Amino acid sequence: MAGAGRDSQRHRPLVGDRNEQAGQRREVDFSVAAVLPASGCGERMGSTTPKQFCPLLQRPLISLTLEAFERVHWITEVVVVVSQQNFELMNSVIDRYSHSRATVVVGGLTRHQSIFNGLKALVENRPHQSWLEKPEVVIIHDAVRPFVEEDILYRVASAANKHGAAGAIRPLISTVVATNPEGYLDHSLERSKYRASEMPQAFTFDVIYRAYEQCTDYDLEHGTECLHLALQYCGISAKLIDGPPDLWKVTYKRDLYAAESIIKESLSKSVCIIAGMQEGQIQLGILLQEDLQLVMKVDLLKWSLSKESSCVQAITSKQHYNFIYINVHLNNMEASSFSVWMDDFTHIKQLAKEASRKNILIYSLLINSTQSTDKIHESVKQGASIIESLIKQRSPALIGQLLVV
Amino acid sequence: MAGAGRDSQRHRPLVGDRNEQAGQRREVDFSVAAVLPASGCGERMGSTTPKQFCPLLQRPLISLTLEAFERVHWITEVVVVVSQQNFELMNSVIDRYSHSRATVVVGGLTRHQSIFNGLKALVENRPHQSWLEKPEVVIIHDAVRPFVEEDILYRVASAANKHGAAGAIRPLISTVVATNPEGYLDHSLERSKYRASEMPQAFTFDVIYRAYEQCTDYDLEHGTECLHLALQYCGISAKLIDGPPDLWKVTYKRDLYAAESIIKESLSKSVCIIAGMQEGQIQLGILLQEDLQLVMKVDLLKWSLSKESSCVQAITSKQHYNFIYINVHLNNMEASSFSVWMDDFTHIKQLAKEASRKNILIYSLLINSTQSTDKIHESVKQGASIIESLIKQRSPALIGQLLVV
Repeated sequence: MAGAGRDSQRHRPLVGDRNEQAGQRREVDFSVAAVLPASGCGERMGSTTPKQFCPLLQRPLISLTLEAFERVHWITEVVVVVSQQNFELMNSVIDRYSHSRATVVVGGLTRHQSIFNGLKALVENRPHQSWLEKPEVVIIHDAVRPFVEEDILYRVASAANKHGAAGAIRPLISTVVATNPEGYLDHSLERSKYRASEMPQAFTFDVIYRAYEQCTDYDLEHGTECLHLALQYCGISAKLIDGPPDLWKVTYKRDLYAAESIIKESLSKSVCIIAGMQEGQIQLGILLQEDLQLVMKVDLLKWSLSKESSCVQAITSKQHYNFIYINVHLNNMEASSFSVWMDDFTHIKQLAKEASRKNILIYSLLINSTQSTDKIHESVKQGASIIESLIKQRSPALIGQLLVV
Repeated sequence: MAGAGRDSQRHRPLVGDRNEQAGQRREVDFSVAAVLPASGCGERMGSTTPKQFCPLLQRPLISLTLEAFERVHWITEVVVVVSQQNFELMNSVIDRYSHSRATVVVGGLTRHQSIFNGLKALVENRPHQSWLEKPEVVIIHDAVRPFVEEDILYRVASAANKHGAAGAIRPLISTVVATNPEGYLDHSLERSKYRASEMPQAFTFDVIYRAYEQCTDYDLEHGTECLHLALQYCGISAKLIDGPPDLWKVTYKRDLYAAESIIKESLSKSVCIIAGMQEGQIQLGILLQEDLQLVMKVDLLKWSLSKESSCVQAITSKQHYNFIYINVHLNNMEASSFSVWMDDFTHIKQLAKEASRKNILIYSLLINSTQSTDKIHESVKQGASIIESLIKQRSPALIGQLLVV
C-alpha cells in the first residue's frame, strides 16, 4: 500500500512544524516512546462520537495529535490505547493518514488501566531478536490535546530522564473549593499555591511501570493522576514544568470549535493570486495583492488557469495552501453569454475539488473592470476581505465558488 | 436620544431567550441587583484590548453578558465595574446597545476592590427620596461569561436569599496539584473531592457588604474568592450549585473563537427562502426547502425581492434572522447581458447591507435551471450546503454575496 502513488496522495499536515521553521530541532541521547490513552467515550461532548474521533477540518482529532508526535523525530513509537469497539476505526485512521510510527492496543475500563496496557505493549509480544528494546523514557499524553509542540515534549522528557518523572502544569483558571457532604462550602484553596496538572507527562519506563505493578485496584479504578502513582509507589517527586496555554484538553463541543479555529488561523497565513494573462487582469491582481499583503503573505502568478493542463500539479508544488483566480469582467465580455461563463466556472470548480484533497483552497473572483477607478479600488478592497474571510473559514461547501464584487 | 427612531434601530439580541421560549419565566419575591467586575486587562488573551471589550460578531463581549442579564426581568439593576481608562468606552457600549438597566462605576486595583466599589454604588450616592433601596440579594458575575441563563441566576439568587451565600461550581477538568518551593510535586488532590468555583455567585447584600468591610488589606489585594470572605468574616457557608458547562470564563483567544461559534450556532437555526414569482423559481425554492429542512427551520416566500420597495421592513418583521433569494438562471436569460445581471446583484447587495445591521443575513443563489433534472437536484443540494455554511459562519465580508451552483 505504501509507495510513490500513495505518497503523492499523502495528506498534507494541517499544522506546520513551527519548531522546524524556527530551526530549533532538538536532540536527545535516550530512547523515547509515547502512550496516548484514547479510550474515553466523550460523554461531556454531548455527542455519540468519542471526542478523539470528532472531525476537525474533516480529519479525526486523534490524527492531528499523532501528527504532532510525528513531527518530533526522537520519539520512535507511539502506542494509541483505544476501546475494543474503536479498534478497527483507529487502525483505519492510522492507515488513511499514514501514521507510520503508531500502533494500536485495546485499553481497560479506566484511564489508568488503559495507560498500563499501553506500557505493557512496549515490552510484551516483542520478537526476541527485535532491535526494539523498552524505551528509557515514556511520554504519556492525551489524544485530545492536539496542539502539543516539540518544546514541551522535550522539556518533560528530559526532566523525566533526569528526575524519574515530570509533568506539564498550568495556572488555575478558577478557584478550587472543597464541598462538605451537604453541598456547602467547606474551604477554598488559595489559587496561587496550586496548579492544574496537564499533559504531557513523562517517566523513566521503570518508574511508571513499577508504579502500575504495585498500585492498588482502588488506584486503578478511581485514580486519574500518574504523577501521584510515581510519588506514592516509587517515592519519585515529579518535576513540574510550566506548559503553554495551547495544551488544553478538548473536552466540550466549544473546545472543538476553538481547536478548529486555531488550525484555520495557522492555515490562513498565505495566498497565491492567479491573475490570468490579460493586462486588465494583471492590473487587478496587483491591486488585490497590495490589499491582501496587509494581512498575509501574497504571491502573484500570471497564468491562464483554464488553459493550463497540469494546473493541480503546478499548484500543489507551490508553498501555498490557498489560491485565488481572478476572472475579470472586461468591456468585451458584455456580449458573452451565460453558457460560456458557466463553463469556465464549472472548470474552476472541478479543479478546486481536486486541490481541496490536499488542503488547498481555490476560489475565483469576478471583478467588474468597466467601473471608474474609484469604484474598482472599492471592488478590490471588497474582494480582498471576501478572500480573507473564505480562507479563514475554509468551508468545504464554498470550495471553488465564484465571488462577485 | 431615546425614542421611536432609536428603538427601530435597536440591535436585535444575538442570543435568543431560551427561558422565554421554554415558557419558564421565574418569579422572585426579593429584590435583586448584580455587580459585574470588568476591570481586568486581559493579559492572558495576548491582545491589547481587554477581553470584555473584544468583539464577538462585531459586538463587545460585555454587551452580550449585559443582554443575558436584561433577559431576566427580576434583576433590576446591573453595576458594571471598569478601570478608569475604560470608563468612557463602557458608557458608549451601554448607550450604543441600549442597556437601560446598567450603570458604570470605576473599580479598584484588584478584583475584590472592584466588586466592593460595585457594592458601594448600590447604596451610596442615591437621592434621598429614591424609590431604589439597597437590594436584598446581589449577584456577582464575570463580564467574560456571556452565556449565563436565567435558570442558574435564579438558583444562586434563591439559595443566597435562603442561606446567605451561594455559588455555581463545575467538576474539575484537570487534577489539581500542590508544588513545593523547588518546583516538584508536593501532593495531588483527589479530583472527585474538589470542584471549580465558577460564577455567578450571590449573597444577601448585608453578608457580602459586611464581609468586605471587615476583611483585611491582604484579602483585598491577594484574594479571588468572594465565597471565602463570606465564610471567614460572616461565618456563612455558601450553598454550592452545579452549573452548566456554558458558564465557562472567556480567558484565552481560543475562548473567543468558541464563544463566537456558540452564538453562530444559535443564530443558524432558521432561514427564509424568497423564491421569486416565476414558476421555475418557486419549484427550485421548494426543492431547496426540502433539503434545508433537514438541518433547520425553513419558510418559503413567493416575493419578487428586487421589485419590492419596502423589503427590509417586511423582512425584519419576520421571525427569521436569515434569508436567501433565489435568482434562477432560466433559459431565456441566455441572452441577457452582464450589465443587467450586475444591476440586480448590486440591488440585493445593498438590501443585504441594510438588513445586516439588524443581524439579518441575505444572500442570493443562482441556480442554472437549464440542466437535466438529476443535475438540478445535485445543484439544489450544493446550494443547500452553501447556504447552511454561510449562515453558520456569518462572515461580514460575504453578506449579500451571490452564490453560483
